[in-house]
Amino acid sequence: MNERHRVVVIGAGFGGLRVVRGLADADVDIVVVDAHNFHTFQPLLYQVATAGLDTDDIAYPIRGIFRRQRNAAVRVAAVTGIDLDRRTVTTTRGEPLEFDTLVVAAGTVSHDFGIDGVTDHTLPLKSVADAVAIRDHVLTTFEHATFDDQVGNELDVVVCGGGPTGVEMAGGLTELYDRVLRKDYPTLPVTKARITLVEAVDRVLGTFDESLSNRAEATLRERGVDVITGTPIASVDEGAVALEDGRRLEAGTIVWAAGVRAAPVAEMLGTELGRGGRIIVGDDLSVPEHPNVFAIGDIAVDPDRPLPQVAQPAIQGGKHVARQIERRLAGEQTETFEYTDKGSMATIGRNQAVAELPGGMKLSGPIGWLAWLALHLLYLIGFRNRLNVFVNWAWNYLTYDRASRLLAPSDD
Amino acid sequence: MNERHRVVVIGAGFGGLRVVRGLADADVDIVVVDAHNFHTFQPLLYQVATAGLDTDDIAYPIRGIFRRQRNAAVRVAAVTGIDLDRRTVTTTRGEPLEFDTLVVAAGTVSHDFGIDGVTDHTLPLKSVADAVAIRDHVLTTFEHATFDDQVGNELDVVVCGGGPTGVEMAGGLTELYDRVLRKDYPTLPVTKARITLVEAVDRVLGTFDESLSNRAEATLRERGVDVITGTPIASVDEGAVALEDGRRLEAGTIVWAAGVRAAPVAEMLGTELGRGGRIIVGDDLSVPEHPNVFAIGDIAVDPDRPLPQVAQPAIQGGKHVARQIERRLAGEQTETFEYTDKGSMATIGRNQAVAELPGGMKLSGPIGWLAWLALHLLYLIGFRNRLNVFVNWAWNYLTYDRASRLLAPSDD
Repeated sequence: MNERHRVVVIGAGFGGLRVVRGLADADVDIVVVDAHNFHTFQPLLYQVATAGLDTDDIAYPIRGIFRRQRNAAVRVAAVTGIDLDRRTVTTTRGEPLEFDTLVVAAGTVSHDFGIDGVTDHTLPLKSVADAVAIRDHVLTTFEHATFDDQVGNELDVVVCGGGPTGVEMAGGLTELYDRVLRKDYPTLPVTKARITLVEAVDRVLGTFDESLSNRAEATLRERGVDVITGTPIASVDEGAVALEDGRRLEAGTIVWAAGVRAAPVAEMLGTELGRGGRIIVGDDLSVPEHPNVFAIGDIAVDPDRPLPQVAQPAIQGGKHVARQIERRLAGEQTETFEYTDKGSMATIGRNQAVAELPGGMKLSGPIGWLAWLALHLLYLIGFRNRLNVFVNWAWNYLTYDRASRLLAPSDD
Repeated sequence: MNERHRVVVIGAGFGGLRVVRGLADADVDIVVVDAHNFHTFQPLLYQVATAGLDTDDIAYPIRGIFRRQRNAAVRVAAVTGIDLDRRTVTTTRGEPLEFDTLVVAAGTVSHDFGIDGVTDHTLPLKSVADAVAIRDHVLTTFEHATFDDQVGNELDVVVCGGGPTGVEMAGGLTELYDRVLRKDYPTLPVTKARITLVEAVDRVLGTFDESLSNRAEATLRERGVDVITGTPIASVDEGAVALEDGRRLEAGTIVWAAGVRAAPVAEMLGTELGRGGRIIVGDDLSVPEHPNVFAIGDIAVDPDRPLPQVAQPAIQGGKHVARQIERRLAGEQTETFEYTDKGSMATIGRNQAVAELPGGMKLSGPIGWLAWLALHLLYLIGFRNRLNVFVNWAWNYLTYDRASRLLAPSDD
């Protein structure tokens, strides 16, 4: 009979990791469940998709992270069900996990908002596998084009969604095209290829200050991105995006960065869900009427103060929940989650980023870019990954090259 | 009408690369054909298989290599036929390639020697995809074992073949098991897992001096490898290797490093083949009766002086053939290929390698290992790869860690 308090953490992303780490000295037994055997540094997925970094630069084996934490075990499996009454989590493999406290930190999945054709004809950018699929798709498209007598719109890319992911993806693509693919494929009309960013609302980076949105858009245009704002997408089919204003953008690659919804695990709780299918939590991040269940990060929302779906709320939420679990064990009341805004950033590529710091300070241009670079290196988990990423970035910066562009051979 | 002399090079390995580079200033048009879009540094495949390096550390995009060489074009496609009379090479995509001179440098493929079950039940180590498959297989075996009540021989590995690849693979596995997996899977009996190296002849590294073979075998045993020599393999089935002496070695992972044969392209020539299906060449490396066809590296053999199937003969052969093509264009006779033995090396892991230098000098232990390290870094193509490999090796050496162990999630 297990006498220790059992904590199950679903998801080894930014939030889940902090919960487990925060409980390192607590008298609990923790199991962290994730379908992947690695933690993904999601803010840099676009770098993998644009061949600037390789997969293991932005991912780190979970078992390696918790190797020295004796009270933490790892289960690599997908969650198939949650029973709040019996306090069990069932997974694709192994016996159901029993918990005294449950933390749901499973993040989000790509969402098509009901737009026709998105699932079948666009490439999402939510996982390492997604990023590799985009990279492979672009490179394969170029390889195949070398055999065509005439090249139409195959080399064009449409990036759907003008949030940070879409902006960074479009910026990264211009660098990949200008600096690498143009030289690698001298026989192809790479300079004529169009990269288009489509955003439904009237500006990119809608959550940023308008001056930074304008700056980002101007930089994207300078670098050759066609930016279309204020124009929702009507539908997508094979090789083309149809806009609501009647325009049709043909492209060999269509990237979907237009939105996400809560991971399916949210529905397994059977509790109330908010916008985007997010689990509704109270001010201490516990689920109402289930004080032993917490939800953090992108999968959760406190309707009274919704937070952006980026790394910081997950990180801070994870630390907060670890503390609350310890307080409960000590017989204390839980505290309200106090979120500290540390600002937000987006890079548009080489020497250009926009950043909004707490207190209203704004950065852009090379200084914003250096700040972005330093911050991301700082938060990248694992010293080796930091060093490798730094080597790759220095290489890319100095040589304008992108090294991570191996293709799996196909039989076609 | 193309007036320039057309050279087609099949294969972008060590040999093919040197042919193309050697013709950089020649008045020729070159097409290099490879099924992959990258060059593979084959001597380090075992490092990818044992999670020490990631794929893009040991592979480099071919188009990047020849980007600045104006007379070279790249075709990423598999060769489907060669017509020596019409002087054409057909490939899976695109029009047939016409050539005036053909260089076949397609290397070798894994070979089962007719032993039952090898193809179905062992993992070869000839390509980047093979190496990743081995790594994934080992890691998945461990993940699955965490769900088993009782662990039998699943964690055991049998490496078939005691040549350099087998020895390096077995050595690399002991490090992966001792330094990483034992810590990552504290609940599994990793220390009881057996790594066995099976060799048909009476010693490992049969092409090396016997003292080095003995040294390598002793080191492998010290590190916990069961070395079985003088014992051919009778057959392989699911999860077990049957030896000719009647023993049966059960293992969750069986790696096939016991031998290779010439790539299928060799047969497409329709010329005489030697041992292992290799293309028979004359002393200038041209194919008898086809002075405009050369074959180099592992896929070729001069029966009067067979060379080892390692990097150096391919590298030197490639340079030689480039010179001969230039001589022919200048109306000169071809020269005999003079091979310079630069020695051979194999590493058994951390601090241990054996090396045989020209002139009979032998190195082993830490000095051999440092020599091995320096030489491989030197020959690794691409500055960035060198730097990354160095970072990873330094990391592995200092921390005993292996970072490249991401698994694709499976649905099972």
